[in-house]
Amino acid sequence: MMVYAGIDLGGMNIKAGLVGDNLQLICKTSRPTDAQRSADDIVADMADMILSLAEENGIANEDIAGVGIGIPGVAKNGVVIELVNLYWKNVPLASAFQKHLDVPVFIDNDGTVAGVYEYHLGVLAGCKVGVLLTLGTGIGGGVVIDGKPFSGAHGLGTELGHLPIVPGGHACTCGNLGCFERYASASALVGVGRKCVVERPESMLCHEAGGDYRNVTAKMVFDCAKKGDAIAEAMVDEYVSYLAMGMTVLMNTLDPDVIALGGGVSAAGGFLLDKASAAMEGRGVFGGQQYAQIKIAKSGNDAGIIGAAMLAR
Amino acid sequence: MMVYAGIDLGGMNIKAGLVGDNLQLICKTSRPTDAQRSADDIVADMADMILSLAEENGIANEDIAGVGIGIPGVAKNGVVIELVNLYWKNVPLASAFQKHLDVPVFIDNDGTVAGVYEYHLGVLAGCKVGVLLTLGTGIGGGVVIDGKPFSGAHGLGTELGHLPIVPGGHACTCGNLGCFERYASASALVGVGRKCVVERPESMLCHEAGGDYRNVTAKMVFDCAKKGDAIAEAMVDEYVSYLAMGMTVLMNTLDPDVIALGGGVSAAGGFLLDKASAAMEGRGVFGGQQYAQIKIAKSGNDAGIIGAAMLAR
Repeated sequence: MMVYAGIDLGGMNIKAGLVGDNLQLICKTSRPTDAQRSADDIVADMADMILSLAEENGIANEDIAGVGIGIPGVAKNGVVIELVNLYWKNVPLASAFQKHLDVPVFIDNDGTVAGVYEYHLGVLAGCKVGVLLTLGTGIGGGVVIDGKPFSGAHGLGTELGHLPIVPGGHACTCGNLGCFERYASASALVGVGRKCVVERPESMLCHEAGGDYRNVTAKMVFDCAKKGDAIAEAMVDEYVSYLAMGMTVLMNTLDPDVIALGGGVSAAGGFLLDKASAAMEGRGVFGGQQYAQIKIAKSGNDAGIIGAAMLAR
Repeated sequence: MMVYAGIDLGGMNIKAGLVGDNLQLICKTSRPTDAQRSADDIVADMADMILSLAEENGIANEDIAGVGIGIPGVAKNGVVIELVNLYWKNVPLASAFQKHLDVPVFIDNDGTVAGVYEYHLGVLAGCKVGVLLTLGTGIGGGVVIDGKPFSGAHGLGTELGHLPIVPGGHACTCGNLGCFERYASASALVGVGRKCVVERPESMLCHEAGGDYRNVTAKMVFDCAKKGDAIAEAMVDEYVSYLAMGMTVLMNTLDPDVIALGGGVSAAGGFLLDKASAAMEGRGVFGGQQYAQIKIAKSGNDAGIIGAAMLAR
């Protein structure tokens, strides 16, 4: 039996697991990343997690067919080009890992990994072109074309959070203005909600947040809107209109079968889906043509591990 | 010897040719489209052009390995979904053509065909991801990934002229607002130039146009800018800033090796290239990373025929 190792290398935790040929998770483990450590130490830990899992589960090292690693950054040809959370720049992760376990190593952006997971086990199944947007602190993107993760020519092709959607708009951490994630991430909605708490003490959101803007969450804004509060619904509608602008760009460039919405905001479920689908109406180039369906991502706790393992399959 | 037939089906003319295995054009011909005719008549004409060319050049019908057809519209699986200039909607072009000549028929958007030409014989050669923008009456797009034309899941993936770049911006023929081609096509620059002729009679452009706004061309605006006229240069710079906005979107979605600029505006050559490259500086998501190179497309009179033939190869 061949197994595939998947590693989800985050800024806070390293999650790792072994996945069977039929996509089931055999076992998993987690350790703190401790990002201040040297890259060598972190890589040694990652390899040790995989080797320990194999030993504990009676799997021979020769049966590990490959390792996939998802990172919250940019990788190309086995080299981590940029991983801000870990202070990594041009770290040859694949070759460093292979000093501990000599198997093929595949590295990709965590958004791409989540997209691969949705392709194999979620709502991008069967798509010729599938796109996942993770709506969280920022916006991550995962693109799968003909079953393969697509990251463009320089490994930068999934930076969908940095699509410019508002000329001269809000400044982004990336150095540009008007990026998609400044308007359509969970953080963007939280920002709008905080402003509401401060400026409109009579609002339901202010009441729910106990009058303290620091308590606002994206879920709280959505929940107020679901209860029919007009102020909250206006915030959600504005949020969704920006989301629709980014999705329109994706329709005209990647023309996906499905755009899956994941990340924290996707917990709003059918309410978000209905609004997003309505906001997309009429945005197609030619009337009456078929465009991307919008779906809520399946996601799940182990998506990062399983998706990474699928990179190696 | 196998040959490939290429057809460039335009609103005004049908151009057709036979292309050898080494990509050289063996022979070509042209007839008026006469778009008011029935689709059946036009298809019969297209087939007759290919069969006549073969006969005149001593090529047996069995040696025609396939036919590629480029159209200024949308096609999927051999069916023309939308071809506004010819009043076609859901015309089964491939099967209709095969009634005259039973060979594999491949149909794609003319922007895609031009991109395929650039991949085989022009400036997209060797690209993992190559993108062509044709800056003409509108903006056409051609995307080639791993040597294959990419048109997305619904055959709509190359409608790059309809990328939304200005929220609530100018109304587009497609029904949306703020589309890329409303700001960065040759027509958009002509529109700005016409306004200048009317409003600024002292300008060099007004002088060059003989005081009549109807004489303005994109080339004329560029020529005034090249001569150092500040008013014309400001128009070109604004034009290029919009072009850069669309190209930034492409960097974040398709992440191409090369973005090739074709169409009428590309005749401005190095002057355009320098300005476009300068406008792209600092637009990358991560400082210091490698992004798409911008190049002037090779193009050429027979690009539409040869590119179409390459669809069939």
